[in-house]
Amino acid sequence: MAHEVSPLKPAEIPSLPPVDGVRMAVAEAGIKYKGRKDVLLMVFDPGTTVAGVLTRSKCPSAPVEWCRDKLSGGEARALVVNSGNANAFTGMKGRDAVATTARVAAEAVGCEVAEVFLASTGVIGEPLDPAPFETVLGGLAKQAKPDGFADAASAIMTTDTFPKRATAKVDIDGTEVTICGIAKGAGMIAPDMATMLGFIVTDAPIAAPALHKLLKRLTRDSFNAITVDGDTSTSDTVLLFATGKAAERGAPLIDDAKDKRLKAFRRALGTVMGELARMVARDGEGATKFVTVEVGGAKSKKSAKRIAMAIANSPLVKTAVAGEDANWGRVVMAVGKAGEPAERDRLAIWFGDIRVAVDGERDPEYSEKTVSAYMKTPEIVIRVDLGIGDGKARVWTCDLTHGYIAVNADYRS
Amino acid sequence: MAHEVSPLKPAEIPSLPPVDGVRMAVAEAGIKYKGRKDVLLMVFDPGTTVAGVLTRSKCPSAPVEWCRDKLSGGEARALVVNSGNANAFTGMKGRDAVATTARVAAEAVGCEVAEVFLASTGVIGEPLDPAPFETVLGGLAKQAKPDGFADAASAIMTTDTFPKRATAKVDIDGTEVTICGIAKGAGMIAPDMATMLGFIVTDAPIAAPALHKLLKRLTRDSFNAITVDGDTSTSDTVLLFATGKAAERGAPLIDDAKDKRLKAFRRALGTVMGELARMVARDGEGATKFVTVEVGGAKSKKSAKRIAMAIANSPLVKTAVAGEDANWGRVVMAVGKAGEPAERDRLAIWFGDIRVAVDGERDPEYSEKTVSAYMKTPEIVIRVDLGIGDGKARVWTCDLTHGYIAVNADYRS
Repeated sequence: MAHEVSPLKPAEIPSLPPVDGVRMAVAEAGIKYKGRKDVLLMVFDPGTTVAGVLTRSKCPSAPVEWCRDKLSGGEARALVVNSGNANAFTGMKGRDAVATTARVAAEAVGCEVAEVFLASTGVIGEPLDPAPFETVLGGLAKQAKPDGFADAASAIMTTDTFPKRATAKVDIDGTEVTICGIAKGAGMIAPDMATMLGFIVTDAPIAAPALHKLLKRLTRDSFNAITVDGDTSTSDTVLLFATGKAAERGAPLIDDAKDKRLKAFRRALGTVMGELARMVARDGEGATKFVTVEVGGAKSKKSAKRIAMAIANSPLVKTAVAGEDANWGRVVMAVGKAGEPAERDRLAIWFGDIRVAVDGERDPEYSEKTVSAYMKTPEIVIRVDLGIGDGKARVWTCDLTHGYIAVNADYRS
Repeated sequence: MAHEVSPLKPAEIPSLPPVDGVRMAVAEAGIKYKGRKDVLLMVFDPGTTVAGVLTRSKCPSAPVEWCRDKLSGGEARALVVNSGNANAFTGMKGRDAVATTARVAAEAVGCEVAEVFLASTGVIGEPLDPAPFETVLGGLAKQAKPDGFADAASAIMTTDTFPKRATAKVDIDGTEVTICGIAKGAGMIAPDMATMLGFIVTDAPIAAPALHKLLKRLTRDSFNAITVDGDTSTSDTVLLFATGKAAERGAPLIDDAKDKRLKAFRRALGTVMGELARMVARDGEGATKFVTVEVGGAKSKKSAKRIAMAIANSPLVKTAVAGEDANWGRVVMAVGKAGEPAERDRLAIWFGDIRVAVDGERDPEYSEKTVSAYMKTPEIVIRVDLGIGDGKARVWTCDLTHGYIAVNADYRS
């Protein structure tokens, strides 16, 4: 399961500062991997609110069903995450494992069972034995400390080649609050909750309904704007926890997502989520190129997003990028197959700043040599203007390479 | 462009007998390839009817637009096909090239311009110079002869590793008629007209509107039931020509697709189209496994087809098959992402005859050893029963391998 580190790993992945009211610890429970941490416990102070966005899969994992049910309560005291086994398609055994884990965590932390949130990632269809959780959670609750984000981000990895972390500090009405997020994901990444797992914590005091609106809105242009292979996981989970501890330093309680005092916070949260999401695309299985697809001039924002995703998910576009080939004909193909309003003879396409097609045909001005040089760079921008409206969207993906085949043709066996 | 012959090539590809009223010839016009035939001219006797199904791409090629316009006439005297250049996204130049080619073909054959049908396959976005057609079409019209199907099937190939031919003889009301079909396609193959190119000819006397209904209906379970990579071409074209020559031997003129005398013909035509379509999947770029996906127990036939296509298009399912890994968890994932009605706890999955999952979890009875042995065979059947209705569908695809990446990462450059 050890893969070479993605060449697209960001030069700098920030260290995360503590967040008031959040403690954590990790353990080696031997769920599937040997010799590495595979269980994370996060503990939240009383009063922590929670919001979540979960996979739209019709065959969700047991932990996803658990979270969907418990999110309505809006309060959280613990998060338990394991890697190695997704506890998906495990029937009644899966539900029992989830209930047992939540009970053990609630005892360890001293909270209600309904305040425990769970996420699992790894192989689908193998029963998850809850015994290792019973062994480790008590100890983890005791060891939990504020500065454990580095270990936490590593413990939730599966085929990831680098941990994903992002952070921001921002003012709410004159009081500084902190946002920290970790994520994992490298494959089975697709538009409908393109996450795998993402956990974001803040000490801002925000009521659960407002927190939910913020998260849902910001997921659209971050975790739901990336794709690796168009495959949607049974386990995708993004949870946002707000401890409210900054209230002790004077931050006001916010109960409306549209509250003007949230302006900077909203932007910072969007940035943190976007950074985490883009790191997932950068760590796409076998990726050698990070690809930004920008679509403008579409009939609507929704239409632009669908066209951008059709381009980003096209195996032929992705292999062309892998081959450093400015094959814009395949971009035309992908626009055409999206089924969205388009007029061939108004279409224009750019690779980076180089316009290669305009008015429905090859741009007579473009130099094959210049565009070939551009295609050799590791970060490629494909831009399409449909010329029929003002809808626009931006999504991120990676190329499709021999590495993807190598990772996925022998993942389980 | 020379690739190794697909290991999934059928043991026998039939030789095609002549069809009354159809003559053909091929030429080396040097459109892109050197040292191989790349232009096909088929000539039809007066009175030939035609029906067609064309790509649903919003960015169709110039020949597709030409055919769409001319199909309403319902009569055909000539078909010109070239490989090497798709004449797609070539703007006004593309339209001019099509008009010129049709004019030259009409002069060569002695027919109306509107009776000439055209198809092109190859690179998108390169202007197609019509000059080679002006040079060769006159000679081809003179050389055209009835027994040229072998050359015809080869001339239309691009990344195909074997020519695709199928045939049947069947009675209409006591008179034997012949059906012959050729096709090409290996990549950019997806549900909305998953063809690339297919041309079927018969001497049966069938009026154009009835012919159209037959073709459309039978395309659903043949050319529209295969996928290689989920990418829809700008050029997909299936044309069905009926010369009506069998009328001279006593076959009745059929003008209703539901005419009972067509029963055997309809079945035979469906078989020919299905065989051609499956040959396309068997020649999928880089394919090492031929995969049949059968979905039953769905809410409706349409729902079953969507779920089958979600499985057949999933990169994770396709790489698992390539890796000979019975990773049914990825099948669960694909069912879940299809967005169609499904109940996890009623789902059952088979690889071949081996049930691996039932009632929403792993089948406790199945032997990993038996299923592993099955996965090593070259033809894999994935069967899913949703257990909630009686909708069913069957589609065909291939695995996703290093070969696909190799073919597509250096196609154009």
